[in-house]
Amino acid sequence: MSDRFAIGVDYGTNSVRALVVNVSTGAEIATHVYDYPSGEAGILLDSRDPNLARQSPMDYIDGFMTSVRSAVQQASSTPGFSAENVIGIGVDTTGSTPMPVDESGQALASKPEFKDNLAAYAWLWKDHTSHAEAKEISALATERGEPYLAKCGGIYSSEWYWSKMLHCIRTAPEVAAAAASWVELADFIPAHITGNAAPDKVVRGICAAGHKAMYNEAWGGLPSEEFLAALDPQLVKWRYTSKAVPADQKAGDLTAEVADSLGLPAGIPVAVGAFDAHMGAVGAGAQAGTLVKIMGTSTCDCLPAPLANELPDIPGLCGIVPESILPGMYGLEAGQSAVGDIFNWFVKQLSPAAFGNDAEAHAKLTEAAAKLKPGESGLVALDWNNGNRTILVDPLLTGLLVGQTLHTTAAEIYRALVEATAFGALTIIRRVEEYGVEVNQVINCGGIAEKNPMVMQIYADVCNRPMKISRSAQTCALGAAVFGAVVGGAHDTVKAAQAAMTGVKETVYEPIAENVAVYEQLYQVYRALHDAFGTADYHGSLHEVMKDLIRIRHQVRQQ
Amino acid sequence: MSDRFAIGVDYGTNSVRALVVNVSTGAEIATHVYDYPSGEAGILLDSRDPNLARQSPMDYIDGFMTSVRSAVQQASSTPGFSAENVIGIGVDTTGSTPMPVDESGQALASKPEFKDNLAAYAWLWKDHTSHAEAKEISALATERGEPYLAKCGGIYSSEWYWSKMLHCIRTAPEVAAAAASWVELADFIPAHITGNAAPDKVVRGICAAGHKAMYNEAWGGLPSEEFLAALDPQLVKWRYTSKAVPADQKAGDLTAEVADSLGLPAGIPVAVGAFDAHMGAVGAGAQAGTLVKIMGTSTCDCLPAPLANELPDIPGLCGIVPESILPGMYGLEAGQSAVGDIFNWFVKQLSPAAFGNDAEAHAKLTEAAAKLKPGESGLVALDWNNGNRTILVDPLLTGLLVGQTLHTTAAEIYRALVEATAFGALTIIRRVEEYGVEVNQVINCGGIAEKNPMVMQIYADVCNRPMKISRSAQTCALGAAVFGAVVGGAHDTVKAAQAAMTGVKETVYEPIAENVAVYEQLYQVYRALHDAFGTADYHGSLHEVMKDLIRIRHQVRQQ
Repeated sequence: MSDRFAIGVDYGTNSVRALVVNVSTGAEIATHVYDYPSGEAGILLDSRDPNLARQSPMDYIDGFMTSVRSAVQQASSTPGFSAENVIGIGVDTTGSTPMPVDESGQALASKPEFKDNLAAYAWLWKDHTSHAEAKEISALATERGEPYLAKCGGIYSSEWYWSKMLHCIRTAPEVAAAAASWVELADFIPAHITGNAAPDKVVRGICAAGHKAMYNEAWGGLPSEEFLAALDPQLVKWRYTSKAVPADQKAGDLTAEVADSLGLPAGIPVAVGAFDAHMGAVGAGAQAGTLVKIMGTSTCDCLPAPLANELPDIPGLCGIVPESILPGMYGLEAGQSAVGDIFNWFVKQLSPAAFGNDAEAHAKLTEAAAKLKPGESGLVALDWNNGNRTILVDPLLTGLLVGQTLHTTAAEIYRALVEATAFGALTIIRRVEEYGVEVNQVINCGGIAEKNPMVMQIYADVCNRPMKISRSAQTCALGAAVFGAVVGGAHDTVKAAQAAMTGVKETVYEPIAENVAVYEQLYQVYRALHDAFGTADYHGSLHEVMKDLIRIRHQVRQQ
Repeated sequence: MSDRFAIGVDYGTNSVRALVVNVSTGAEIATHVYDYPSGEAGILLDSRDPNLARQSPMDYIDGFMTSVRSAVQQASSTPGFSAENVIGIGVDTTGSTPMPVDESGQALASKPEFKDNLAAYAWLWKDHTSHAEAKEISALATERGEPYLAKCGGIYSSEWYWSKMLHCIRTAPEVAAAAASWVELADFIPAHITGNAAPDKVVRGICAAGHKAMYNEAWGGLPSEEFLAALDPQLVKWRYTSKAVPADQKAGDLTAEVADSLGLPAGIPVAVGAFDAHMGAVGAGAQAGTLVKIMGTSTCDCLPAPLANELPDIPGLCGIVPESILPGMYGLEAGQSAVGDIFNWFVKQLSPAAFGNDAEAHAKLTEAAAKLKPGESGLVALDWNNGNRTILVDPLLTGLLVGQTLHTTAAEIYRALVEATAFGALTIIRRVEEYGVEVNQVINCGGIAEKNPMVMQIYADVCNRPMKISRSAQTCALGAAVFGAVVGGAHDTVKAAQAAMTGVKETVYEPIAENVAVYEQLYQVYRALHDAFGTADYHGSLHEVMKDLIRIRHQVRQQ
């Protein structure tokens, strides 16, 4: 039997990547990255509102066609590859990134009348224009005693589906009036390439629906018509009733037109879409109890847990959604609002000349920081420069550094910031364990995990667990390809596909006992600061400190 | 009548300055600075013990002769000056800087047998080798219910007189055995140049005795023989019984030998010595209710208050000593452990390449920071990188910065550090006011006050008081000259001498109402952090944070 291949397509914030993978061996034989041409690094901004971040649906479509076509062309030079042997396609994307569409499923942004209307474009995950609407949704759900928030950390986010739609109604009624539906990017791409773009034909993925749209079969799918109507009657028309399904299901078959343009056979099965981190977890080989940390500017942490267990609500977790990562398991999602972003901030703003710039500064600071022993600097930081996503779910938190003397060095602070993110990681692990969810291994993905042994050793020492690294450098795209392989029939189960296609690197960072002992003490300090500044039920006056500063800052900047 | 002149001699940490001043006008007609030649920048160090800081008494004597001789020579080119018209000399020094002497008053360090024994040298104010003995003294005084600590902030310091002598007994018994007495530098110089160096002839200044040696007439001078004997019987022989007097008294007359070498007439009256900051306050024109801030790497704050008022003990003040600044008034001393040192630390360790180095970086950071509005950065810092001298009297406190985001800039942090020192200054003012001591004007001295309008404006806005700047750039030496003028008979009182010889600059930094309003809010934040991290009676667990980190740091560094 000749080799067979799946294609994983991974939509990031600035580009889309297509990856061609051998479904038997996991060998990644070809890849192509397409940078979104619109706006700044693919993001449409509004100088009047720093919260706004939109993207062009045309970039998404062009990006699919170009990246897949190029990857297939590149793969053609590999012995054993034939376009005829591509058996499935999987898609992962950022999210919540919904866009308004018309009755045929065409993105409103692609229509001439909405060309200059940013509300008609895709609302990128990090668009924060809808913060007032998010509060309104949280407040109404709480007031009505609805169950919707319990599975998404107790607070509905400005980054999520309904907040964005409600904000569109309030601020761009012409777009709202023209929108037959709103479709998440993760659903839009599979629907578009399989000819199922019309809203009533779109196969909705459980991952986006469950984590961002408060979808849960326990309460009948999306929030009730009554609830949505109480927010705004227009929302009701966008409440789809189709069942949301996991990514091992098929969204449709590749249309002849798209296939022809790509140089692929028509009819290739396309898997239901899901978010990048969730498919990344699958590409890293996650099973029940595997915490996968996708480490980049921020982290997304994904943890499958057996469905058989009745999971309690876990306060502060971003989401607990059945089958959002793996079929037959709960998908738990958590995240750290800033990790690499904090290190980048330090290098950009505070790195002295002796360390050089950018990558050189990271390397030199890492080299100096790696020579320090845990605790030697006397510093502890809080990793909240971009708020706290898990477990405090509070964007109005800020960074803190304590312990500096007149001798404190840049490398000491750099290390303290790395340690702070490790303490943040440990806090997430402890929270899920407190609620009975087992974490029996940690696999890390992303550039930091692959390239910075100091960071990984600190994570191992702080968490007192081995830190493993995903074998693939394109873990998310590989995860998408895994689902492509499953819907293409190469493997009966996702687990079997993972066994064949995924793995971890040989290097495992093991905790060092003497470091663990020091970090246990330092974590007590971190936790005291975390609880004092981050929680209302402890040291009330300090809990207000960061919020007071933000309030004052806002007042002053408005003057 | 021809012009008359006084000479002020100011012993700093690294050099000694002589200043020739017209006693009628305050005109500073000549000055000469002598850098101590020994050790590193005049300080003898021990690589095995970072706490050790000693100085050479020979440097002090050479420094007096060279600086005064050179200043007099320089003055001779000024029309109207004649060495015959020098009518008095005043001396100020660092302290507590005691040194062991023999029965003739000769410094032990100048004897061949002690040439290589650092314990026989002068123990510079910032020598911290005696921290264990300081604790022992505080504990014994507390245990015995002695009154000694009440006027020096409740805690006896490792920098002070008896701690150093006790440490010498414990660690260098050969020096202790040979020492007939220990003399503060402020007393040593006037005694030496007037031929009154023998311990029983030395005229002791109330400033050093009262602030550092627990001298108070209320309990009969120095601590009792019983108390000293309970610490160590050897201390008793060093308990001098002469009355300590203020600096408007005469220590003696310049000997013919010294005078001859200087090119001055013999017999010039020499004033009793005092500390640099206290004489600086006089040189800045301090009256009752004038807070004088000597701003440098740290600050020393001096505040005269009417003796007529019965002053309560003020917790956390470094000292309350009758007549230590001005005759007929209490001298209150406070201080901030680091001010310029914090800005220097930031520039040295964390200033990005774009700002250049050292002075250029300070200038560029100041330029950028000056464009920011109060509160705009969302940052607040604690000014404790070198511990806290007033009002917490706790060296085991460290710096803290809160409020940083991914956009926080170096200039914002620089400004936050400046603001933190201003909040520290306000905390001192509030503390003395709470105890009924009026602060009716603030005069600043030193390079930062003279050269950095942004810093002074922030101090004015934070403290909501006008900030004045001393007219003289050599305020301490000028203050010493004021006392020289008084003992020389040019003026009947110190107040009259100050009126003639001192003043403030025309530029006064007035508080700006809108800035004051924001800083009132930010001070609440500072104070919440101050109390939480600095005081035991509030938020116990955070009070331990900085100490825990220091303890862990110490453990790790010992490994």
